[in-house]
Amino acid sequence: MTALESVVDNVGAKGLDHLWRPGSVAVVGASDDPAKWGHWLASGALSGRELRRVHLVNHNGSRVCGTPTVRSLREVDGPVDLAVIAVPVPAVADAVDAALDAGARALLVITDGLHRLPRRPDLAHELAERARAAGVRLVGPSSLGIADTGARLQLAWGRFVQGPVAVVTQSGQVGSELAAMLARDGSGVSRFASVGRQVDVTTEELLASLVTDEPTRAVLTYLEDVRDPRAFLEAAAALRAADKPLVVLAAGTSAAGSAAARSHTGALTGSIDVLDAACRAAGAVRAGTPAHAAALAHALALGARPRGRRIAVISDSGGQAALAADVAATAGLTVAPLDGEAGERVRTLLPDAAPSNPIDLAGAGEQDMTVYARAAEAVADSVDAVLLTGYFGRFGEDSPSLADAERLVAERLTRLTVKVPVLVHSMADEPITTGTLTRGGVPVFADVRTTLLALAGSAEWTGARPRTLPPAPTTEHAPGGDASYVAAREVLVRAGVPMAEAAMANSAAEAVEISRRWPGRTVLKAGELAHKTEVGGVVLGLRTEEEVAAAYRELTHRLAVPSLVVERMDERPGVVEMLVGVRRDPVFGPVIVVGTGGVTAELWRDTALELAPVTEEQAARMLTRLRGYPLLLGWRGAPGTDLAALARCVAAVSRIPQAEPDVAACEINPLRVAPDGVVAVDALLTWNDTTEEMYR
Amino acid sequence: MTALESVVDNVGAKGLDHLWRPGSVAVVGASDDPAKWGHWLASGALSGRELRRVHLVNHNGSRVCGTPTVRSLREVDGPVDLAVIAVPVPAVADAVDAALDAGARALLVITDGLHRLPRRPDLAHELAERARAAGVRLVGPSSLGIADTGARLQLAWGRFVQGPVAVVTQSGQVGSELAAMLARDGSGVSRFASVGRQVDVTTEELLASLVTDEPTRAVLTYLEDVRDPRAFLEAAAALRAADKPLVVLAAGTSAAGSAAARSHTGALTGSIDVLDAACRAAGAVRAGTPAHAAALAHALALGARPRGRRIAVISDSGGQAALAADVAATAGLTVAPLDGEAGERVRTLLPDAAPSNPIDLAGAGEQDMTVYARAAEAVADSVDAVLLTGYFGRFGEDSPSLADAERLVAERLTRLTVKVPVLVHSMADEPITTGTLTRGGVPVFADVRTTLLALAGSAEWTGARPRTLPPAPTTEHAPGGDASYVAAREVLVRAGVPMAEAAMANSAAEAVEISRRWPGRTVLKAGELAHKTEVGGVVLGLRTEEEVAAAYRELTHRLAVPSLVVERMDERPGVVEMLVGVRRDPVFGPVIVVGTGGVTAELWRDTALELAPVTEEQAARMLTRLRGYPLLLGWRGAPGTDLAALARCVAAVSRIPQAEPDVAACEINPLRVAPDGVVAVDALLTWNDTTEEMYR
Repeated sequence: MTALESVVDNVGAKGLDHLWRPGSVAVVGASDDPAKWGHWLASGALSGRELRRVHLVNHNGSRVCGTPTVRSLREVDGPVDLAVIAVPVPAVADAVDAALDAGARALLVITDGLHRLPRRPDLAHELAERARAAGVRLVGPSSLGIADTGARLQLAWGRFVQGPVAVVTQSGQVGSELAAMLARDGSGVSRFASVGRQVDVTTEELLASLVTDEPTRAVLTYLEDVRDPRAFLEAAAALRAADKPLVVLAAGTSAAGSAAARSHTGALTGSIDVLDAACRAAGAVRAGTPAHAAALAHALALGARPRGRRIAVISDSGGQAALAADVAATAGLTVAPLDGEAGERVRTLLPDAAPSNPIDLAGAGEQDMTVYARAAEAVADSVDAVLLTGYFGRFGEDSPSLADAERLVAERLTRLTVKVPVLVHSMADEPITTGTLTRGGVPVFADVRTTLLALAGSAEWTGARPRTLPPAPTTEHAPGGDASYVAAREVLVRAGVPMAEAAMANSAAEAVEISRRWPGRTVLKAGELAHKTEVGGVVLGLRTEEEVAAAYRELTHRLAVPSLVVERMDERPGVVEMLVGVRRDPVFGPVIVVGTGGVTAELWRDTALELAPVTEEQAARMLTRLRGYPLLLGWRGAPGTDLAALARCVAAVSRIPQAEPDVAACEINPLRVAPDGVVAVDALLTWNDTTEEMYR
Repeated sequence: MTALESVVDNVGAKGLDHLWRPGSVAVVGASDDPAKWGHWLASGALSGRELRRVHLVNHNGSRVCGTPTVRSLREVDGPVDLAVIAVPVPAVADAVDAALDAGARALLVITDGLHRLPRRPDLAHELAERARAAGVRLVGPSSLGIADTGARLQLAWGRFVQGPVAVVTQSGQVGSELAAMLARDGSGVSRFASVGRQVDVTTEELLASLVTDEPTRAVLTYLEDVRDPRAFLEAAAALRAADKPLVVLAAGTSAAGSAAARSHTGALTGSIDVLDAACRAAGAVRAGTPAHAAALAHALALGARPRGRRIAVISDSGGQAALAADVAATAGLTVAPLDGEAGERVRTLLPDAAPSNPIDLAGAGEQDMTVYARAAEAVADSVDAVLLTGYFGRFGEDSPSLADAERLVAERLTRLTVKVPVLVHSMADEPITTGTLTRGGVPVFADVRTTLLALAGSAEWTGARPRTLPPAPTTEHAPGGDASYVAAREVLVRAGVPMAEAAMANSAAEAVEISRRWPGRTVLKAGELAHKTEVGGVVLGLRTEEEVAAAYRELTHRLAVPSLVVERMDERPGVVEMLVGVRRDPVFGPVIVVGTGGVTAELWRDTALELAPVTEEQAARMLTRLRGYPLLLGWRGAPGTDLAALARCVAAVSRIPQAEPDVAACEINPLRVAPDGVVAVDALLTWNDTTEEMYR
């Protein structure tokens, strides 16, 4: 069974079909007051009455939307597949019971505030228990509702324009805003699900339920947490396998930074980095704001799959072309010079202009509007995407006589999408071409930055290399006590990390004896203390036997320790100091971090993070993301360092959590990387809290 | 005379009054075809016919917009104050002559393509000469036009909604897009000027002409170049003095964008860092994209003047509140905990919720809509700005019966603006409250990031400390040959920069003699070579007299130089390596740069730049902007460095271009900063090209 089939199978087994494809719907708490939730739900449900039975329940039994109601679900005539509950808090429990009595197969609880009930704070969980016991699934409470526009299933506050993007949201209102933004951009919603408090049905299950939904071409999810990381990764991977891109909008990017200051590695990477790593692992992409998330989902749903980041910018305004090129650069896109053939074609097309990129049409569009399409055609084979920015879309608005010509050009542009993604930024208020372009797979946006972020995000999605998902973390881990340098060395040596040559000495004479094993300088470390550096337990650069002996006596005396680590000092030339660390994220489990190291590591915060373990190849790719990567390649005339050894070390460290369940976190800093290999010269280790006793 | 008066006086003297306040207007090239420029200009001019005489000129003499025309300006009956010229390229010269003959006082040339005339590439400049000789000012050619909505002066393509923001643009179409964005946000345009190719009237003059324009409350300018930096700085400073914030949108921040801007206007775009420094000097702010520039100008025009960056976020959605807090952090705003009093007031208002910031109204807004205003009132005294984000603005859209109540709350919110700026992000499509809020000084945006960037930009404007403008650069400078280390040392010593102790030695014996002057190690440098480092002309860390003598012999022999600099090696502990440099920007003249230095300076690119010279106080503020500032304060237990000495050195270096006109650029790297002062240990110097001969 493939991952896709297994996810789909799972979903079927969990009975979300009754939620998405109910044979009949009952709205409990239907209201005739247009400002009330019960009105939106009732009128929404009635909009699908041609496709399924709709029952309205109102405690007065008065007509709602001109339709008769019953006073209780128990009075309903016939089966109820899905019951929507929007009654006041005190009436919810009875409504759930009545729905179960009536044989409902799925429950959607809209009512908010159950968790604030003073005497029954766990009521929602109790209701979920009751439902599960009856084999019934429950969405909510505090859900804004669900919708399936193609199936005319409209059980939510608000109106949903039909389109190809599914929205699964942990905040009803953020979901509602995303749906509105999609509509504004000329897109719309296939399915909408507000998960509410997730006492039963989870975000992860709802994401998985979209894998087989034909009208859904992309998925947009708003996350505040991931409760089941394995299910999240599997759903994301299955969506990717089904070519339905998943766009993640996550809250908490600012709180995350301050939260993780405790552990050494944690101080450098917040949990949003871990979510990003999870998205990379499963081939999903994250967007930073609702507007960019909606724009990206829109572009991906229309099929934008740029093969890379080289784009052509076409504009009828030199100014808008220049601004687009600037914004493209900040979005990580390349507005590269045209190659020979494309350059020739543009030169033929625009004899007055230099065939440069951006392509400035100057006045050519006013003379002959087809130049927009012809310019795009000229470069279609040479770039990964085409951006048209400027006036196009406003001809018809300013001069109605030009509307038909403009639509014809729009149609011609859509025919290019078989070759290359085309995106349009139009300065028109309501471009008359948007319908034509969107239907033909060309998204149109009102702002050039939004357009280019959608393009860059699409390129990121296409370029992602989803990997075999790492195993789910088996147990909960909490960092406990810090271990000694000696313990860290042992763990790292077992992992296969090259450590500086060293041995324990119990006397000054032994220390001198050990220091004779190597030609250069020697380091002494109070290696059995957990915080040796903070107490001055390290002495570097000892040249002579006298210096070694004297330093040994001073250290053991001052720190009252019986023995010291005697270590060879790494004196190789051309060294770059890096850090390599592994820790256990409370949500996604083990993560591996590599970054530029040394004492300024926390200042520059130049790190790359992935879910652990990683292969050597994946580790090597992490290095290329570092701002300090040029240091490793050979900076200002220095020789290049041993990248393979560094990648090997990163991969080795990334396997520690699997091999050593008692290790909570381990960080090498610095790892000294030279042309002839790596040497770890300092490391910190933290044990798991649960097993700390064993080791102390 | 104040700067403000002198700028205004200047403007009056240059006669732009005839442009902005013409007694009569003639449109040459008026057309009845709605798709033609001549139609927009004619119909626009006619819209102001109640306020001034309007003459239409059409080469056929046929009626335009139902109005009679004449065949030539020479046939016009009565005076012509402003002539608008929109005829084909070959007819422009004659039209200009006719306008001058008719006694026009100002010319607005719309026609594009004059610069592409094969035989008369300088025609536009010739026409400007003719106009100037007659005491007449000329805007254009290639202008999209001008407009003054309050004066019903509409001489441009497009429609302009009236509002408080003036737009001056070096790209007609970018200006047109900015005007459309302002209208979309509920703002509008006071004056609009597309400068075209600036053969006579410049961007800088048009900016200055807005200082005294009463309806203009903020100015938005799109720049591809600054031709007269002094005039730009003075106009910007005068606008600031008149409390009319200037928002700058600039093209050319990327290589591709800069190339595109260059090909568009043929202008040399300066570095964006220098433009930013110029904006800081004059108290203007830069925005990165058209949408953000328009939003910022809108907020500033409505009077948003946050005293600082501490904001309160109020939302009826926990999700939208969290996203707003995240975005606020990326925009450099602080969503800080509420102080005691504000916390108490919020606790009284929302007994169910923790009095935290963001303030989550949860369902309270549904119960009683005034809670939006009451929550804002509760925190108004405690923060620098209030952001309301979420559903507000959509009550009336979703439930028309709630529209009046919503407008009342909007009015109540506007009353808070006497205390604190209030900004609203509404998820409504067309919030019915936008009019009420905007009229009351509360901007409303459709996207939370746009709202927060407008807020952050407003705070930047309020917090800017415009400085005495540095003198304009007197002559053109071009970097010529590199000077030697010895020459650089001399310039820096004259400037008062502490250099490492040193002397020239002509023999090994002399070198040894000199090295006895200090206790520690010695450095030898082939200081008379321009590229000593690249040829291995530096030997560090010489401990003994023998080492000094041997190194002297090896260096002088290998490099065939007759003498060396013998320098004391800086061996102080706790040193941070910085770089300090000065150079001459081709547009704005001398600029001073300080940054974290050493060999990785170019990797981290952590620098701060200002127009030179700077005072010690300004230099000290530059340091606080560096990412590496914590290194200077004392990093990981290191002692703090001598910030005063560093600031003194930056200020001293910043004065070099004034004191030494022959110096093109000078950079110290590293400047070693320790707790007990600074020592420059290496420096590069470049002479101006023109004077290079003198020194070589």
